[in-house]
Amino acid sequence: MNFPSKLIEDAVTEISRLPGIGKKTALRLALHLLKQKESVSEDLANAILSLRKQIKYCHTCFNVSDSETCSICRSGRRDRTIICVVEDIPDVLAIENTSQFNGLYHVLGGIISPIQGIGPDDLKIEALISRIAGSEGEEKVSEIILALPATMEGDTTSFFITRRLKEFGVKVSTIARGIPIGGELEYTDEITLGRSILTRVNYSVD
Amino acid sequence: MNFPSKLIEDAVTEISRLPGIGKKTALRLALHLLKQKESVSEDLANAILSLRKQIKYCHTCFNVSDSETCSICRSGRRDRTIICVVEDIPDVLAIENTSQFNGLYHVLGGIISPIQGIGPDDLKIEALISRIAGSEGEEKVSEIILALPATMEGDTTSFFITRRLKEFGVKVSTIARGIPIGGELEYTDEITLGRSILTRVNYSVD
Repeated sequence: MNFPSKLIEDAVTEISRLPGIGKKTALRLALHLLKQKESVSEDLANAILSLRKQIKYCHTCFNVSDSETCSICRSGRRDRTIICVVEDIPDVLAIENTSQFNGLYHVLGGIISPIQGIGPDDLKIEALISRIAGSEGEEKVSEIILALPATMEGDTTSFFITRRLKEFGVKVSTIARGIPIGGELEYTDEITLGRSILTRVNYSVD
Repeated sequence: MNFPSKLIEDAVTEISRLPGIGKKTALRLALHLLKQKESVSEDLANAILSLRKQIKYCHTCFNVSDSETCSICRSGRRDRTIICVVEDIPDVLAIENTSQFNGLYHVLGGIISPIQGIGPDDLKIEALISRIAGSEGEEKVSEIILALPATMEGDTTSFFITRRLKEFGVKVSTIARGIPIGGELEYTDEITLGRSILTRVNYSVD
Protein backbone atom coordinates (compact mmCIF):
# COMPACT_ATOMS: atom_id res chain seq x y z
CA MET A 1 0.00 0.00 0.00
CA ASN A 2 1.32 3.45 -0.92
CA PHE A 3 0.55 6.29 1.46
CA PRO A 4 0.23 9.93 0.49
CA SER A 5 1.92 10.99 3.72
CA LYS A 6 4.83 9.74 5.80
CA LEU A 7 2.90 10.61 8.97
CA ILE A 8 0.01 8.35 7.95
CA GLU A 9 2.43 5.60 6.96
CA ASP A 10 4.18 5.75 10.35
CA ALA A 11 0.89 5.72 12.25
CA VAL A 12 -0.40 2.78 10.20
CA THR A 13 2.84 0.86 10.77
CA GLU A 14 2.73 1.37 14.53
CA ILE A 15 -1.00 0.71 14.93
CA SER A 16 -0.82 -2.45 12.80
CA ARG A 17 1.80 -3.88 15.18
CA LEU A 18 -1.06 -4.46 17.63
CA PRO A 19 -2.39 -8.03 17.59
CA GLY A 20 -5.38 -8.60 15.29
CA ILE A 21 -5.08 -5.23 13.56
CA GLY A 22 -4.02 -5.26 9.91
CA LYS A 23 -2.93 -2.42 7.65
CA LYS A 24 -6.45 -1.65 6.42
CA THR A 25 -7.92 -1.44 9.92
CA ALA A 26 -4.93 0.61 11.07
CA LEU A 27 -5.53 3.06 8.23
CA ARG A 28 -9.21 3.31 9.16
CA LEU A 29 -8.28 4.03 12.78
CA ALA A 30 -5.67 6.63 11.76
CA LEU A 31 -8.14 8.44 9.48
CA HIS A 32 -10.75 8.28 12.26
CA LEU A 33 -8.33 9.99 14.66
CA LEU A 34 -7.69 12.70 12.04
CA LYS A 35 -11.40 13.49 11.97
CA GLN A 36 -11.64 13.81 15.77
CA LYS A 37 -10.54 16.68 17.98
CA GLU A 38 -6.85 16.81 18.79
CA SER A 39 -7.61 15.99 22.45
CA VAL A 40 -8.85 12.50 21.46
CA SER A 41 -5.44 11.60 20.05
CA GLU A 42 -3.69 13.23 23.01
CA ASP A 43 -5.76 11.32 25.57
CA LEU A 44 -5.15 8.06 23.73
CA ALA A 45 -1.39 8.60 23.45
CA ASN A 46 -1.11 9.68 27.09
CA ALA A 47 -3.14 6.73 28.36
CA ILE A 48 -0.89 4.32 26.45
CA LEU A 49 2.29 5.99 27.73
CA SER A 50 1.14 6.22 31.38
CA LEU A 51 -0.02 2.61 31.30
CA ARG A 52 3.33 1.32 30.11
CA LYS A 53 5.51 3.59 32.24
CA GLN A 54 3.63 3.70 35.55
CA ILE A 55 2.05 0.28 35.82
CA LYS A 56 3.15 -1.82 38.78
CA TYR A 57 2.74 -5.49 39.55
CA CYS A 58 1.52 -6.63 42.96
CA HIS A 59 4.47 -8.08 44.93
CA THR A 60 2.28 -10.81 46.36
CA CYS A 61 0.02 -12.06 43.56
CA PHE A 62 1.66 -10.46 40.44
CA ASN A 63 -1.62 -8.97 39.26
CA VAL A 64 -1.39 -5.50 37.67
CA SER A 65 -1.79 -2.76 40.21
CA ASP A 66 -1.31 0.97 40.75
CA SER A 67 0.72 0.29 43.90
CA GLU A 68 3.09 -2.34 45.27
CA THR A 69 0.23 -4.39 46.71
CA CYS A 70 -2.93 -4.74 44.65
CA SER A 71 -6.38 -3.83 45.90
CA ILE A 72 -7.40 -7.51 46.19
CA CYS A 73 -4.37 -8.47 48.31
CA ARG A 74 -4.87 -5.33 50.45
CA SER A 75 -8.58 -5.85 51.03
CA GLY A 76 -9.64 -6.89 54.54
CA ARG A 77 -12.79 -8.51 53.22
CA ARG A 78 -11.18 -11.29 51.19
CA ASP A 79 -10.64 -14.84 52.46
CA ARG A 80 -6.85 -15.08 52.72
CA THR A 81 -6.86 -18.87 53.15
CA ILE A 82 -7.85 -19.63 49.53
CA ILE A 83 -5.63 -18.80 46.56
CA CYS A 84 -6.82 -19.12 42.97
CA VAL A 85 -3.93 -19.79 40.55
CA VAL A 86 -4.41 -18.35 37.06
CA GLU A 87 -2.34 -18.11 33.89
CA ASP A 88 -2.56 -14.38 33.32
CA ILE A 89 -4.19 -11.07 34.24
CA PRO A 90 -7.35 -11.31 32.07
CA ASP A 91 -8.25 -14.49 33.97
CA VAL A 92 -8.32 -12.52 37.25
CA LEU A 93 -10.69 -10.01 35.66
CA ALA A 94 -12.89 -12.80 34.27
CA ILE A 95 -13.18 -14.55 37.66
CA GLU A 96 -13.71 -11.25 39.52
CA ASN A 97 -16.59 -10.44 37.18
CA THR A 98 -18.39 -13.64 38.22
CA SER A 99 -18.51 -12.40 41.88
CA GLN A 100 -18.26 -16.08 42.90
CA PHE A 101 -14.79 -16.02 44.41
CA ASN A 102 -13.76 -14.16 47.51
CA GLY A 103 -10.21 -15.39 48.04
CA LEU A 104 -6.86 -14.16 46.75
CA TYR A 105 -5.17 -14.78 43.39
CA HIS A 106 -1.79 -15.83 42.12
CA VAL A 107 -0.87 -14.90 38.55
CA LEU A 108 1.69 -17.30 37.06
CA GLY A 109 2.43 -15.12 34.04
CA GLY A 110 2.07 -18.06 31.63
CA ILE A 111 1.92 -21.85 31.65
CA ILE A 112 4.54 -24.54 31.17
CA SER A 113 5.02 -25.02 27.43
CA PRO A 114 8.08 -26.94 26.20
CA ILE A 115 7.24 -25.97 22.59
CA GLN A 116 7.45 -22.27 23.40
CA GLY A 117 10.41 -22.87 25.69
CA ILE A 118 8.55 -21.85 28.87
CA GLY A 119 9.65 -23.91 31.87
CA PRO A 120 8.58 -23.79 35.54
CA ASP A 121 11.39 -21.33 36.34
CA ASP A 122 9.94 -18.76 33.91
CA LEU A 123 6.71 -18.67 35.92
CA LYS A 124 5.86 -17.46 39.40
CA ILE A 125 5.59 -20.99 40.77
CA GLU A 126 8.35 -20.67 43.40
CA ALA A 127 6.74 -17.42 44.58
CA LEU A 128 3.50 -19.37 45.05
CA ILE A 129 5.31 -22.05 47.07
CA SER A 130 6.96 -19.50 49.38
CA ARG A 131 3.65 -17.70 49.73
CA ILE A 132 2.05 -20.91 50.99
CA ALA A 133 5.07 -21.90 53.09
CA GLY A 134 5.18 -18.44 54.63
CA SER A 135 1.50 -18.25 55.59
CA GLU A 136 0.61 -18.95 59.19
CA GLY A 137 -1.99 -18.49 61.90
CA GLU A 138 -5.43 -17.36 60.75
CA GLU A 139 -4.05 -16.53 57.34
CA LYS A 140 -2.63 -20.00 56.72
CA VAL A 141 -3.48 -21.05 53.17
CA SER A 142 -5.78 -24.06 53.25
CA GLU A 143 -6.83 -24.42 49.61
CA ILE A 144 -5.37 -23.78 46.18
CA ILE A 145 -7.80 -23.59 43.27
CA LEU A 146 -6.10 -24.25 39.93
CA ALA A 147 -7.96 -22.24 37.26
CA LEU A 148 -5.68 -23.02 34.33
CA PRO A 149 -6.62 -23.66 30.68
CA ALA A 150 -8.02 -27.09 29.82
CA THR A 151 -5.13 -27.81 27.45
CA MET A 152 -2.12 -30.10 27.54
CA GLU A 153 0.01 -27.19 28.78
CA GLY A 154 -2.54 -26.20 31.41
CA ASP A 155 -2.79 -29.80 32.67
CA THR A 156 1.02 -30.10 32.78
CA THR A 157 1.22 -26.93 34.84
CA SER A 158 -1.55 -28.10 37.19
CA PHE A 159 0.23 -31.44 37.61
CA PHE A 160 3.57 -29.75 38.32
CA ILE A 161 2.12 -27.37 40.91
CA THR A 162 0.13 -30.14 42.62
CA ARG A 163 3.28 -32.26 43.02
CA ARG A 164 5.28 -29.31 44.37
CA LEU A 165 2.51 -28.61 46.91
CA LYS A 166 2.34 -32.16 48.27
CA GLU A 167 4.59 -31.53 51.28
CA PHE A 168 2.45 -28.65 52.55
CA GLY A 169 -0.72 -30.71 53.02
CA VAL A 170 -2.77 -27.98 51.37
CA LYS A 171 -6.00 -28.94 49.59
CA VAL A 172 -5.71 -28.57 45.81
CA SER A 173 -8.80 -28.27 43.62
CA THR A 174 -9.41 -27.39 39.98
CA ILE A 175 -12.34 -25.58 38.40
CA ALA A 176 -15.02 -27.87 36.95
CA ARG A 177 -14.83 -28.89 33.29
CA GLY A 178 -17.99 -29.88 31.48
CA ILE A 179 -20.87 -28.77 29.31
CA PRO A 180 -21.28 -24.95 29.50
CA ILE A 181 -24.55 -23.68 31.02
CA GLY A 182 -27.11 -23.47 28.19
CA GLY A 183 -24.96 -25.73 26.00
CA GLU A 184 -26.56 -28.42 23.84
CA LEU A 185 -25.17 -31.97 24.24
CA GLU A 186 -25.48 -32.51 20.51
CA TYR A 187 -23.03 -29.71 19.67
CA THR A 188 -20.49 -30.37 22.41
CA ASP A 189 -17.17 -31.87 21.31
CA GLU A 190 -16.61 -35.53 22.21
CA ILE A 191 -13.72 -34.92 24.60
CA THR A 192 -15.66 -32.47 26.76
CA LEU A 193 -18.77 -34.65 26.68
CA GLY A 194 -16.80 -37.80 27.44
CA ARG A 195 -14.98 -36.15 30.32
CA SER A 196 -18.21 -34.70 31.70
CA ILE A 197 -19.59 -38.26 31.96
CA LEU A 198 -16.44 -39.56 33.65
CA THR A 199 -16.41 -36.66 36.13
CA ARG A 200 -20.18 -36.74 36.81
CA VAL A 201 -21.31 -35.37 40.16
CA ASN A 202 -24.01 -36.51 42.58
CA TYR A 203 -27.40 -35.03 41.94
CA SER A 204 -30.08 -35.10 44.60
CA VAL A 205 -33.55 -33.69 44.92
CA ASP A 206 -34.79 -33.08 48.44
CA MET B 1 -16.08 -4.61 33.97
CA ASN B 2 -13.97 -3.90 37.07
CA PHE B 3 -10.30 -3.17 36.57
CA PRO B 4 -7.54 -3.87 39.09
CA SER B 5 -5.76 -0.65 38.10
CA LYS B 6 -6.82 2.89 37.21
CA LEU B 7 -4.08 2.98 34.55
CA ILE B 8 -5.51 -0.07 32.81
CA GLU B 9 -9.02 1.35 33.09
CA ASP B 10 -7.96 4.66 31.49
CA ALA B 11 -6.12 2.91 28.67
CA VAL B 12 -9.08 0.60 28.00
CA THR B 13 -11.47 3.59 27.99
CA GLU B 14 -9.35 5.53 25.50
CA ILE B 15 -8.57 2.58 23.22
CA SER B 16 -12.22 1.49 23.13
CA ARG B 17 -13.21 4.94 21.79
CA LEU B 18 -11.73 3.82 18.46
CA PRO B 19 -14.34 2.56 15.98
CA GLY B 20 -14.90 -1.19 16.01
CA ILE B 21 -12.92 -1.76 19.21
CA GLY B 22 -14.87 -2.84 22.27
CA LYS B 23 -13.81 -3.05 25.92
CA LYS B 24 -12.59 -6.65 25.66
CA THR B 25 -10.43 -6.00 22.60
CA ALA B 26 -9.13 -2.80 24.19
CA LEU B 27 -8.11 -4.76 27.30
CA ARG B 28 -6.37 -7.36 25.13
CA LEU B 29 -4.44 -4.59 23.32
CA ALA B 30 -3.53 -2.87 26.61
CA LEU B 31 -2.23 -6.12 28.13
CA HIS B 32 -0.35 -6.82 24.90
CA LEU B 33 1.40 -3.45 25.17
CA LEU B 34 2.34 -4.23 28.78
CA LYS B 35 4.15 -7.37 27.63
CA GLN B 36 6.14 -5.53 24.96
CA LYS B 37 9.19 -3.32 25.39
CA GLU B 38 8.51 0.23 26.52
CA SER B 39 9.66 1.52 23.11
CA VAL B 40 6.67 -0.16 21.40
CA SER B 41 4.22 1.93 23.44
CA GLU B 42 6.36 5.04 22.97
CA ASP B 43 6.52 4.63 19.18
CA LEU B 44 2.78 4.03 19.00
CA ALA B 45 1.94 7.07 21.15
CA ASN B 46 4.36 9.30 19.24
CA ALA B 47 3.07 8.19 15.84
CA ILE B 48 -0.51 8.98 16.91
CA LEU B 49 0.47 12.40 18.29
CA SER B 50 2.61 13.40 15.28
CA LEU B 51 -0.08 12.27 12.88
CA ARG B 52 -2.72 14.41 14.50
CA LYS B 53 -0.56 17.47 15.17
CA GLN B 54 1.57 17.66 12.02
CA ILE B 55 -0.72 16.39 9.26
CA LYS B 56 -1.54 18.86 6.50
CA TYR B 57 -4.17 18.80 3.79
CA CYS B 58 -3.25 19.58 0.19
CA HIS B 59 -4.53 23.07 -0.71
CA THR B 60 -5.50 21.89 -4.18
CA CYS B 61 -7.08 18.45 -3.82
CA PHE B 62 -7.62 18.19 -0.02
CA ASN B 63 -5.85 14.85 0.21
CA VAL B 64 -3.70 14.30 3.32
CA SER B 65 -0.16 15.43 2.81
CA ASP B 66 3.07 16.25 4.63
CA SER B 67 3.24 19.64 2.91
CA GLU B 68 0.85 22.28 1.54
CA THR B 69 0.68 20.57 -1.85
CA CYS B 70 0.48 16.78 -1.94
CA SER B 71 2.89 14.58 -3.86
CA ILE B 72 0.26 13.77 -6.51
CA CYS B 73 -0.58 17.42 -7.24
CA ARG B 74 3.16 18.26 -7.27
CA SER B 75 4.14 15.43 -9.60
CA GLY B 76 5.15 16.40 -13.15
CA ARG B 77 4.21 12.98 -14.47
CA ARG B 78 0.46 13.16 -13.80
CA ASP B 79 -2.11 14.18 -16.41
CA ARG B 80 -3.40 17.50 -15.06
CA THR B 81 -6.40 17.59 -17.43
CA ILE B 82 -8.32 14.79 -15.69
CA ILE B 83 -9.63 15.09 -12.13
CA CYS B 84 -11.11 12.14 -10.24
CA VAL B 85 -13.65 13.24 -7.61
CA VAL B 86 -13.84 11.00 -4.53
CA GLU B 87 -15.67 11.03 -1.23
CA ASP B 88 -12.72 10.67 1.12
CA ILE B 89 -9.02 9.92 1.53
CA PRO B 90 -9.19 6.08 1.58
CA ASP B 91 -10.76 6.24 -1.90
CA VAL B 92 -7.63 8.01 -3.22
CA LEU B 93 -5.48 5.23 -1.76
CA ALA B 94 -7.74 2.55 -3.25
CA ILE B 95 -7.63 4.08 -6.76
CA GLU B 96 -3.87 4.72 -6.52
CA ASN B 97 -3.31 1.07 -5.68
CA THR B 98 -4.97 0.00 -8.95
CA SER B 99 -2.28 1.92 -10.95
CA GLN B 100 -4.99 2.55 -13.57
CA PHE B 101 -5.37 6.30 -13.11
CA ASN B 102 -2.75 8.91 -13.84
CA GLY B 103 -4.68 12.14 -13.35
CA LEU B 104 -5.27 14.29 -10.28
CA TYR B 105 -7.79 13.90 -7.46
CA HIS B 106 -10.30 16.03 -5.64
CA VAL B 107 -11.40 14.89 -2.17
CA LEU B 108 -14.88 16.17 -1.29
CA GLY B 109 -14.62 15.25 2.39
CA GLY B 110 -18.04 13.55 2.35
CA ILE B 111 -21.16 13.32 0.21
CA ILE B 112 -24.46 15.18 0.25
CA SER B 113 -26.68 13.56 2.89
CA PRO B 114 -29.81 15.40 4.05
CA ILE B 115 -30.34 12.78 6.79
CA GLN B 116 -26.93 13.51 8.34
CA GLY B 117 -27.37 17.22 7.65
CA ILE B 118 -24.52 17.40 5.12
CA GLY B 119 -25.25 19.89 2.34
CA PRO B 120 -23.17 20.95 -0.71
CA ASP B 121 -21.65 23.82 1.29
CA ASP B 122 -20.12 21.38 3.79
CA LEU B 123 -18.12 19.75 1.00
CA LYS B 124 -15.28 20.95 -1.21
CA ILE B 125 -17.56 21.35 -4.24
CA GLU B 126 -16.99 25.10 -4.73
CA ALA B 127 -13.24 24.50 -4.53
CA LEU B 128 -13.64 21.95 -7.35
CA ILE B 129 -15.57 24.47 -9.46
CA SER B 130 -12.95 27.19 -8.98
CA ARG B 131 -10.21 24.65 -9.72
CA ILE B 132 -11.85 23.88 -13.07
CA ALA B 133 -12.71 27.52 -13.79
CA GLY B 134 -9.15 28.56 -12.94
CA SER B 135 -7.41 25.98 -15.13
CA GLU B 136 -6.14 27.16 -18.50
CA GLY B 137 -3.74 26.42 -21.36
CA GLU B 138 -2.22 22.96 -21.43
CA GLU B 139 -3.46 22.29 -17.90
CA LYS B 140 -7.11 23.05 -18.72
CA VAL B 141 -9.28 20.39 -17.13
CA SER B 142 -11.05 18.41 -19.85
CA GLU B 143 -12.61 15.54 -17.90
CA ILE B 144 -14.06 14.93 -14.46
CA ILE B 145 -14.42 11.32 -13.32
CA LEU B 146 -16.99 10.93 -10.55
CA ALA B 147 -15.88 8.00 -8.35
CA LEU B 148 -18.56 8.31 -5.66
CA PRO B 149 -20.42 5.53 -3.82
CA ALA B 150 -23.26 3.79 -5.68
CA THR B 151 -25.81 4.92 -3.10
CA MET B 152 -28.64 7.42 -3.09
CA GLU B 153 -26.32 9.99 -1.46
CA GLY B 154 -23.52 9.29 -3.93
CA ASP B 155 -25.91 9.64 -6.89
CA THR B 156 -27.30 12.90 -5.46
CA THR B 157 -23.80 14.30 -5.13
CA SER B 158 -22.86 13.19 -8.66
CA PHE B 159 -26.04 14.81 -10.00
CA PHE B 160 -25.37 18.05 -8.13
CA ILE B 161 -21.76 18.30 -9.32
CA THR B 162 -22.70 17.47 -12.93
CA ARG B 163 -25.30 20.26 -12.98
CA ARG B 164 -22.85 22.77 -11.48
CA LEU B 165 -20.27 21.82 -14.13
CA LYS B 166 -22.58 22.30 -17.10
CA GLU B 167 -21.44 25.84 -17.92
CA PHE B 168 -17.77 24.80 -18.20
CA GLY B 169 -18.29 22.33 -21.05
CA VAL B 170 -16.08 19.78 -19.29
CA LYS B 171 -16.68 16.08 -19.97
CA VAL B 172 -18.15 14.31 -16.93
CA SER B 173 -17.90 10.53 -16.55
CA THR B 174 -18.58 8.09 -13.73
CA ILE B 175 -16.82 4.84 -12.90
CA ALA B 176 -18.55 1.71 -14.27
CA ARG B 177 -21.08 -0.14 -12.12
CA GLY B 178 -21.73 -3.81 -12.77
CA ILE B 179 -20.85 -7.37 -11.84
CA PRO B 180 -17.45 -7.50 -10.11
CA ILE B 181 -14.68 -9.37 -11.94
CA GLY B 182 -14.95 -13.03 -10.90
CA GLY B 183 -18.51 -12.50 -9.64
CA GLU B 184 -21.22 -15.10 -10.25
CA LEU B 185 -24.45 -13.82 -11.87
CA GLU B 186 -26.46 -16.13 -9.63
CA TYR B 187 -25.26 -14.43 -6.43
CA THR B 188 -25.40 -10.81 -7.64
CA ASP B 189 -28.22 -8.67 -6.20
CA GLU B 190 -31.06 -7.84 -8.60
CA ILE B 191 -30.39 -4.09 -8.72
CA THR B 192 -26.74 -4.48 -9.78
CA LEU B 193 -27.63 -7.21 -12.27
CA GLY B 194 -30.57 -5.22 -13.69
CA ARG B 195 -28.45 -2.12 -14.04
CA SER B 196 -25.61 -4.05 -15.66
CA ILE B 197 -28.06 -5.18 -18.37
CA LEU B 198 -29.37 -1.64 -18.93
CA THR B 199 -25.87 -0.20 -19.12
CA ARG B 200 -24.42 -3.01 -21.27
CA VAL B 201 -21.42 -2.12 -23.41
CA ASN B 202 -20.48 -3.16 -26.94
CA TYR B 203 -18.46 -6.33 -27.20
CA SER B 204 -16.51 -7.14 -30.29
CA VAL B 205 -14.11 -9.84 -31.31
CA ASP B 206 -11.65 -8.96 -34.05
